[in-house]
Amino acid sequence: MNRKPTLAVVGATGAVGAVMLQLLSQHADVWGEIRLLASPRSAGRKLAVRGEETEVLALDEDLLEGVDVVLLLAPEDVAARWAPIAAAEGAVVVDTSAAFRADPDVPLVVPEINPHAVRVRPRGIVASPGCSTLALIVAVGALHAEFGVAELVVTAQQAASVAGQAGVTALREQLSLVAGTELGHRPGDVRRAVGDDTGPFPGPVALNVLPWSGTPTEDGWSSEELRIREETRKILDLPGLPVAATCVRVPVVTAHSVSVHARFERPVTVGRAHEILATSPGVVLYDDPAAGGFPTPADVVGTDPTWVGRVRRSMDDERALEFFVCADNLRKGAALNALQIAEAVRPEIGTG
Amino acid sequence: MNRKPTLAVVGATGAVGAVMLQLLSQHADVWGEIRLLASPRSAGRKLAVRGEETEVLALDEDLLEGVDVVLLLAPEDVAARWAPIAAAEGAVVVDTSAAFRADPDVPLVVPEINPHAVRVRPRGIVASPGCSTLALIVAVGALHAEFGVAELVVTAQQAASVAGQAGVTALREQLSLVAGTELGHRPGDVRRAVGDDTGPFPGPVALNVLPWSGTPTEDGWSSEELRIREETRKILDLPGLPVAATCVRVPVVTAHSVSVHARFERPVTVGRAHEILATSPGVVLYDDPAAGGFPTPADVVGTDPTWVGRVRRSMDDERALEFFVCADNLRKGAALNALQIAEAVRPEIGTG
Repeated sequence: MNRKPTLAVVGATGAVGAVMLQLLSQHADVWGEIRLLASPRSAGRKLAVRGEETEVLALDEDLLEGVDVVLLLAPEDVAARWAPIAAAEGAVVVDTSAAFRADPDVPLVVPEINPHAVRVRPRGIVASPGCSTLALIVAVGALHAEFGVAELVVTAQQAASVAGQAGVTALREQLSLVAGTELGHRPGDVRRAVGDDTGPFPGPVALNVLPWSGTPTEDGWSSEELRIREETRKILDLPGLPVAATCVRVPVVTAHSVSVHARFERPVTVGRAHEILATSPGVVLYDDPAAGGFPTPADVVGTDPTWVGRVRRSMDDERALEFFVCADNLRKGAALNALQIAEAVRPEIGTG
Repeated sequence: MNRKPTLAVVGATGAVGAVMLQLLSQHADVWGEIRLLASPRSAGRKLAVRGEETEVLALDEDLLEGVDVVLLLAPEDVAARWAPIAAAEGAVVVDTSAAFRADPDVPLVVPEINPHAVRVRPRGIVASPGCSTLALIVAVGALHAEFGVAELVVTAQQAASVAGQAGVTALREQLSLVAGTELGHRPGDVRRAVGDDTGPFPGPVALNVLPWSGTPTEDGWSSEELRIREETRKILDLPGLPVAATCVRVPVVTAHSVSVHARFERPVTVGRAHEILATSPGVVLYDDPAAGGFPTPADVVGTDPTWVGRVRRSMDDERALEFFVCADNLRKGAALNALQIAEAVRPEIGTG
């Protein structure tokens, strides 16, 4: 076929969907029809994509007919139900939820790191990693290619939009309650001012750090923390890699930041790490702290790359590096990576 | 002598000084005269201590005469100058600055961990560690006593009051500028709204995470990060302990939080770690995440202990634990630890 492939965006009205429509309008126009789908609750809205107002339709099996690629930007339960349906209709499904990431028959793809993996998809589904994994994996993968990663210890400071628009709304409402006050000096005064309704967060996030993200799993780990471990292992094809992750939530709107301790198989130098990071696709090195040069979430939000700064070699181990990465959790952490996967799949279809 | 010893508080008008006066009013009344001293700029103010309005006097050599213990809550340069003067006058000096912490003739004391160290002070000076070290050391020291710590990787999320009242003021002003806005979605929009005057911070701290604290040192490390390493080694008397620290600043008023990865010499279990932490002086264990039970800075601010939660054993190493600690950087992180040192020194003087 020589026609341009048809794309469906499921979850077009959410926080990640809004970024996806922006990206589709900015990237090379390689798609034919773009169908915008969402839950019946959101159907009927009109959204701009490629400069055209497009009506959002209620997700339905009929509407997946003839679709070549589905970008599934939906919660895990919706994805678990609809990905197999769309795949059965013949579409390649790119799923941003956690539903299929651990499935051995579903590749987990970061195009800068393991682009080849996209070709083998027995279930017709390709999974995109979680936003915290995506915040660090492009930089870690680039260094791994040269030094061989042997262990990771990371602390991910997640932004409020990790919980979608509801997270951003909760943060903004809480900020309005605490700004202009003297709160934050007495035990629990922020919690009392914010009240019991903390939205999608397990406590107040304004003027606070919440050391919890996701759902409880075995032995005290949160689901988000274990996912960073499992996803990193799968993407790097290192099933035995030791990974210890801590996820906390901070009062930032969008863009995750991660402090990374990486031990490698071979000795490292800051100079060589700088060279690698400065020349790796998808990475921007910004590392001049004496002159105020380091990435921060509020500075990199809305940009595509993974930003890396604060690179230092361990004082105690010539094989270990510390560094600090920031990436927009809605862009590289969700919409952008999924679209990159779709764009990597497209040549198989459009020129088939 | 049977008289109660005379105490001088230098830096009584600062953020740590305010907490010190509170603590002096709450703790057992073991002191005779309490002299409040500060820079000439702050002299003349009246502050309440033990229920009495007390005039703040300008720091002067004459005023150190007859003082038994000096609590030095001053910047590093002031401490470097005045600590030897006060010691020469015969006082025991408890210094909260970094000026003498690395001096082999100055003990670095955390009363829960190395109380014996306070007895040997060739220069008449006892140093109190920095606030980030103090946030984690009580918990780490308790676990070390049983398991033997072999390596630490930590990320310290520092509160704005790490930069004193100026830091809190800057955070509050920035919050007023961003609350009620849609800022935080576009690159640099928070930075532009806040403007170039970011107070004591190297960038906007509202809606942000700043991966920098202190001054530049060799090889990209910040002074605060290296201090955590050096102070932890000295307090635990483990000069070869590998410690990799990252310090970031977050939009929290007061109370630091630290994610800790600790590898030990012997195998650990969460159960035994819980038992140790639940029974260690100065530590509160709060670890029931499935029920929302974990410490956060906004909940523990204004309290004395080190709070510990999120204890989990590494999935990859039976000798490693992750945990999350919170402590008030003005209390245990500064004023309280210094006062505990002074109270440990007092019996030598008051009953001499």
